[in-house]
Amino acid sequence: MKLVDKPVTNFLDELASNAPAPGGGSVAALSGALGAALVSMVCNLTLGKKAYADVQDEISDLLAESEALREQLTGLLEEDVKAYTGYSKAAKMPRGTAEEKAERQVVMQAALKVATDVPLSIAETAVKVMDLCMPAAEKGNKWAVSDAGVAVLMAEAALRSAALNVLINLGTLKDKEFVADRRAKLDALLEGKGTMRDEIYDYVASKL
Amino acid sequence: MKLVDKPVTNFLDELASNAPAPGGGSVAALSGALGAALVSMVCNLTLGKKAYADVQDEISDLLAESEALREQLTGLLEEDVKAYTGYSKAAKMPRGTAEEKAERQVVMQAALKVATDVPLSIAETAVKVMDLCMPAAEKGNKWAVSDAGVAVLMAEAALRSAALNVLINLGTLKDKEFVADRRAKLDALLEGKGTMRDEIYDYVASKL
Repeated sequence: MKLVDKPVTNFLDELASNAPAPGGGSVAALSGALGAALVSMVCNLTLGKKAYADVQDEISDLLAESEALREQLTGLLEEDVKAYTGYSKAAKMPRGTAEEKAERQVVMQAALKVATDVPLSIAETAVKVMDLCMPAAEKGNKWAVSDAGVAVLMAEAALRSAALNVLINLGTLKDKEFVADRRAKLDALLEGKGTMRDEIYDYVASKL
Repeated sequence: MKLVDKPVTNFLDELASNAPAPGGGSVAALSGALGAALVSMVCNLTLGKKAYADVQDEISDLLAESEALREQLTGLLEEDVKAYTGYSKAAKMPRGTAEEKAERQVVMQAALKVATDVPLSIAETAVKVMDLCMPAAEKGNKWAVSDAGVAVLMAEAALRSAALNVLINLGTLKDKEFVADRRAKLDALLEGKGTMRDEIYDYVASKL
């Protein structure tokens, strides 16, 4: 059964338990999906409303984007659990002989690369959600402006949460080129996003 | 049916729809519950582990607190929806005669006070979750330190999201004493929490 098919309360119970997955990576993806869903909500509360007749096309495009990102993020939530399971399996491989030890190392390093790239994709997708929040706040139904504000808070928390999950895996990876490449990608994604969050939050708060 | 008894994917679908609830207030409560659940996870991965023998009592207390806060926050998620429903009902009251108009005003203002105090409680509870994150990061299982980091990101996003929902209701309340009181309470809750988030995030990142 997919994690997202479980009741919210069971998801929380499994998260709180000592089971290794779901963990912070899944929460990052869920947080991003919550942000995307809130952008969609703002759009759905704007579409078909006379007072917003001049922004219908724009809002329609925004909705298509937020829904696509939401789908990607719920998919990434499952992928994060799979990546963790892959790594756990690798860690349990026999390491009695030097040959076994070497093989385990290779499989573990490959699994760690997957476990790095999934949260990196979550981070990339979360940034795309953040990009939709200011247009949603500015053009969307003014009664839902606080929801656009919550959307950016959730998307930025998703980005930063994903970043921690990228970093924890980069710390144990031995392929220096891979590490440098992914660290550079992560730094580029994080750049200026705290400021962006504050700007959208302040804009929303100024409208309340 | 309670919102938290619905599958995660249905929760997201309802959030994205043009139905007024769930909205940003419910997401604030859920975000706080996700933070609390992650603190619990760190504790559960620490309890019974020999390497952490000297912090077992402390971690046990931490877990009791995080689980209590998680329960409060899932309860507040439902209360937020109820508060919104209460306000919607009030808004639909007849306003044909001057008497009806006056009665509707009274009921609406009372409903708005409830709709303000629920997110204020979410904000208060989210701050209590934030308070558990540094102890969890410092004392808990070091393999779960990134989860303590994600916990503070979710709890702080919960606080700020709840704040926006307090502010949107304060804007339409006429009882100036109530507004001043709740605004002061909210300001006190927000004070320094951005810095606190950054400090815990930086501490966690330094351990990865």
